[in-house]
Amino acid sequence: MSKYTIGLDFGTLDGRAMLVDVKTGKEIVGASYTYPDGVIEDILPNTKTKLPPDYALQNPIDYLDVLKRVIPELLKKSRVYPENIIGIGVDFTSCTMLPIDKQGIPLCMKEKWKDNPHAWVKLWKHHAAEPYANKLREIALKGKEKFILRYGGKISSEWMFPKIWQILEESPEIYEAADRFIEAGDWIVLQLTGKERRSSCQAGYKAIWDKKEGYPSPEFFATLHPRLKNVVEEKLSNKIYPTGSKAGGLTLRMAQLTGLKENTPVAVGIIDAHSAVPACTVTQPGKMVLIMGTSTSHTLLSKEQKLIPGIPSVVEDGILPGFFGYEAGQAAVGDIFDWFVTNCVPASYEREAQKQGVNIYRLLEKKASKLKPGESGLIALDWWNGNRSILNKANLSGLILGLTLRTKSEEIYRALIEATAFGTRVIIETFEKNGLPIEELYACGGMPHKDRLLMQIYADVTGREIKVASSRQASALGAAMFGALAAGSEAGGYDSIKDAVTYMTSLEKKTYLPIPENVKAYNQLFTEYKKLHDYFGRGSNQVMERLKRR
Amino acid sequence: MSKYTIGLDFGTLDGRAMLVDVKTGKEIVGASYTYPDGVIEDILPNTKTKLPPDYALQNPIDYLDVLKRVIPELLKKSRVYPENIIGIGVDFTSCTMLPIDKQGIPLCMKEKWKDNPHAWVKLWKHHAAEPYANKLREIALKGKEKFILRYGGKISSEWMFPKIWQILEESPEIYEAADRFIEAGDWIVLQLTGKERRSSCQAGYKAIWDKKEGYPSPEFFATLHPRLKNVVEEKLSNKIYPTGSKAGGLTLRMAQLTGLKENTPVAVGIIDAHSAVPACTVTQPGKMVLIMGTSTSHTLLSKEQKLIPGIPSVVEDGILPGFFGYEAGQAAVGDIFDWFVTNCVPASYEREAQKQGVNIYRLLEKKASKLKPGESGLIALDWWNGNRSILNKANLSGLILGLTLRTKSEEIYRALIEATAFGTRVIIETFEKNGLPIEELYACGGMPHKDRLLMQIYADVTGREIKVASSRQASALGAAMFGALAAGSEAGGYDSIKDAVTYMTSLEKKTYLPIPENVKAYNQLFTEYKKLHDYFGRGSNQVMERLKRR
Repeated sequence: MSKYTIGLDFGTLDGRAMLVDVKTGKEIVGASYTYPDGVIEDILPNTKTKLPPDYALQNPIDYLDVLKRVIPELLKKSRVYPENIIGIGVDFTSCTMLPIDKQGIPLCMKEKWKDNPHAWVKLWKHHAAEPYANKLREIALKGKEKFILRYGGKISSEWMFPKIWQILEESPEIYEAADRFIEAGDWIVLQLTGKERRSSCQAGYKAIWDKKEGYPSPEFFATLHPRLKNVVEEKLSNKIYPTGSKAGGLTLRMAQLTGLKENTPVAVGIIDAHSAVPACTVTQPGKMVLIMGTSTSHTLLSKEQKLIPGIPSVVEDGILPGFFGYEAGQAAVGDIFDWFVTNCVPASYEREAQKQGVNIYRLLEKKASKLKPGESGLIALDWWNGNRSILNKANLSGLILGLTLRTKSEEIYRALIEATAFGTRVIIETFEKNGLPIEELYACGGMPHKDRLLMQIYADVTGREIKVASSRQASALGAAMFGALAAGSEAGGYDSIKDAVTYMTSLEKKTYLPIPENVKAYNQLFTEYKKLHDYFGRGSNQVMERLKRR
Repeated sequence: MSKYTIGLDFGTLDGRAMLVDVKTGKEIVGASYTYPDGVIEDILPNTKTKLPPDYALQNPIDYLDVLKRVIPELLKKSRVYPENIIGIGVDFTSCTMLPIDKQGIPLCMKEKWKDNPHAWVKLWKHHAAEPYANKLREIALKGKEKFILRYGGKISSEWMFPKIWQILEESPEIYEAADRFIEAGDWIVLQLTGKERRSSCQAGYKAIWDKKEGYPSPEFFATLHPRLKNVVEEKLSNKIYPTGSKAGGLTLRMAQLTGLKENTPVAVGIIDAHSAVPACTVTQPGKMVLIMGTSTSHTLLSKEQKLIPGIPSVVEDGILPGFFGYEAGQAAVGDIFDWFVTNCVPASYEREAQKQGVNIYRLLEKKASKLKPGESGLIALDWWNGNRSILNKANLSGLILGLTLRTKSEEIYRALIEATAFGTRVIIETFEKNGLPIEELYACGGMPHKDRLLMQIYADVTGREIKVASSRQASALGAAMFGALAAGSEAGGYDSIKDAVTYMTSLEKKTYLPIPENVKAYNQLFTEYKKLHDYFGRGSNQVMERLKRR
């Protein structure tokens, strides 16, 4: 009898679940549920509370609804018996965090707090904690805190502590009312198992935790704000569990809600990007995994711990046990293309797409494919959502240069794709300059399967072959793989990630090889990109930051 | 019995005519005709000849069709008797030039040459002669030619000689076949009167001619190319006629074609922008006239001749007799907004505009009006068609900075308006720094009457009151005024431009006063604009020029 695991993958806009055959990795069925409240940026749901700029919140009820809807749907569609489902893995965006009470109930679900934005989930891309991130960083650098070196001297506003500090300063009543602050991924595991099992992955990458050093000291936190002194002890779960380990078994209540068997093993949560790494077949150094969706995450394994300027995250055992896991990222990639299609593509293109029976993205791709590198004279800086790596400044913004009266929509679209590829190249070069060679790229996520032009541009810009994971839901597959680890070999799962990779993953036949003449053209354009990148990003002209602060 | 004159106004996209009551300036009727071939940028009409980048050609048959269509339409609509029409004035874009044969027939109208792009009209915004303009400038500077100082050390690719030189180099057979090269405005006067009466306005502003010094010397032209040595003598009409004078009387053939009386006086041609100056009531220094259409022209009168860096054109008697006429310009203004609406406004806005029963421009204006200066965090450089003043570089291009995932269409639209206003402010400040104070602005052209937001932004950005000419067709009215001068007082017209201004012009009641808090905000934004302007425009980073040359 075949055994199965479920990978639960919570993204920025929806939650997906996938039922996977543990022996073959075959993805039996999938289901997804779009969060009705999506990303909350303007008005709090059911209120008139207008949000300040740079807010990005979510509604935790949307996450629960994912569980309630997609797991029964998997069972129904697949007709697999619940007893043959031997494990569940969970991956989630991060740092996506929320304040909860003693019972694990999010504060925003309580009448008393529902009108307070700080009671809600702060999504990873909530950037309003930027001033706190900057202050934290300054104080840490001034105090020569050891931890700040581990993060290349940078602290992102997307991380846990800037977000907590923002809550304390701007809504002390929420800080006091919160029994704990928790990663949304850990919160889902808590919902499933009744146990809080803080994941080493989230803690290491997003909460300044280290396997050897632990969290920053209470003395350090006290210099930020007296009330923060014991933030770890008072407001966070202090016990950390490695990825791939078992968090617990499914509760009776959750079993009833989902249709699964009580006590089905649930793995400790993992960040969505990191979950995809083994799903891309990668279990060794020199192979960078690009998870390309609304944002792009770049992960790399190494036996060595290096401090790389601008690559803020190196976590021991953070991705796979036995390796230092490096993570870099671009805060907006697919998001930029979506923004462009929603806000900048003219009605005439919409009509043309309808006529051709394709969507706007395919029409733009088709038109943009006919352009040669550099032909349009356009170049862009891909900082629509700030720069996460290497500059690590959320207040940077996007730029398009080279516009003329003849500039066409597809030219801008292509320039935006190229800009994101240049951003990836800056990251690759930074790794290499610091002694971590990168031979190949592995891609997964929403875009590599559907956008060939984009993949070719990335190969041409980076000058490297790109292999694509067969799975179209690599994070979910990875989560299912971790579910198989939580189950263990006795139950029909696996005891090592290598085994899980061997049986459960594969790559697409089509790979993307760099085209020499394009590589040459892009080398020139990249020089221009780099010059603009440094001019606007490294302090020569801080116009972006000045304009954004207004 | 009332007397009338006709102003013929040839713009970038259409030709317009206006019948004006000479005693009151009342605009009795108007008519216009859109050039069927418009601006030819991609493919030569009726051929498969693809044009290189930066070409902008026109079809002279379109100009003849304007005469044939709009004048009879005026007569028909107004029921005015031809004998009561005492004069005709002509204004035209410039330097819009064409090669003609001995009979005045454009070479592109001949079977032999119709497939050769160089046989066609080169529109003012044809920028493909940029390399020749640069070379001409370099050689002139090296040779310390006196004339180059008159033009602030700059030569524009839009002018006559770079365009002629391009023809000689790239199509010597056209150069040889051309009996003359002629301004399109002078060509229309030639069509109407049978006489070539080269206008001092076009010659002075666009062909390096000066009342005292004449053209550059044959020796200078010979250093450009041996064949150019006698270009003036061989290829140009060397006798120059002042604006406001009479070119001749309407020919019998043209009288039959248009329905007007034979021998109706026709004025010497004038550049469209300059024609608008007296129509804005301006006949003295300190008052800058902005003619705001697809591009913007800034004109200023002064008793003094100053050499102002980046203001390439100072012509004695070039606008009004007795004054040095200064001209600066922005190569694209309305063109940028049109580009934006055509290429960048999403379908959802089109639907919203339809629902509200307004056009897209009004919808964008409405939405953009709600924004405060600086609110969007955007800033743009308005160089979609290069920079004419003060940098005088056609190879510069447009830039938008500050884009985020929340940037909306109306925010970009507003930033583009602001950018063009900043561009005007750079021009104003350059005049003032060089000893020509500007107290007030006078606006006319396509935009001041219909776009209140734009006018308010210009007042706020420049910190000056803006008065608007009553006439919605100031260039055409100006042409009609020059028609009245050509007729003279004996025939019922005028003998001086001051008289024509007194009787034929007026201003709108509504003027635009700067709003102090907006002025303050824009002063800050202008600092940012200026920094970007100098960085990209003055050689620190020539990325725009490098990308455009590819």
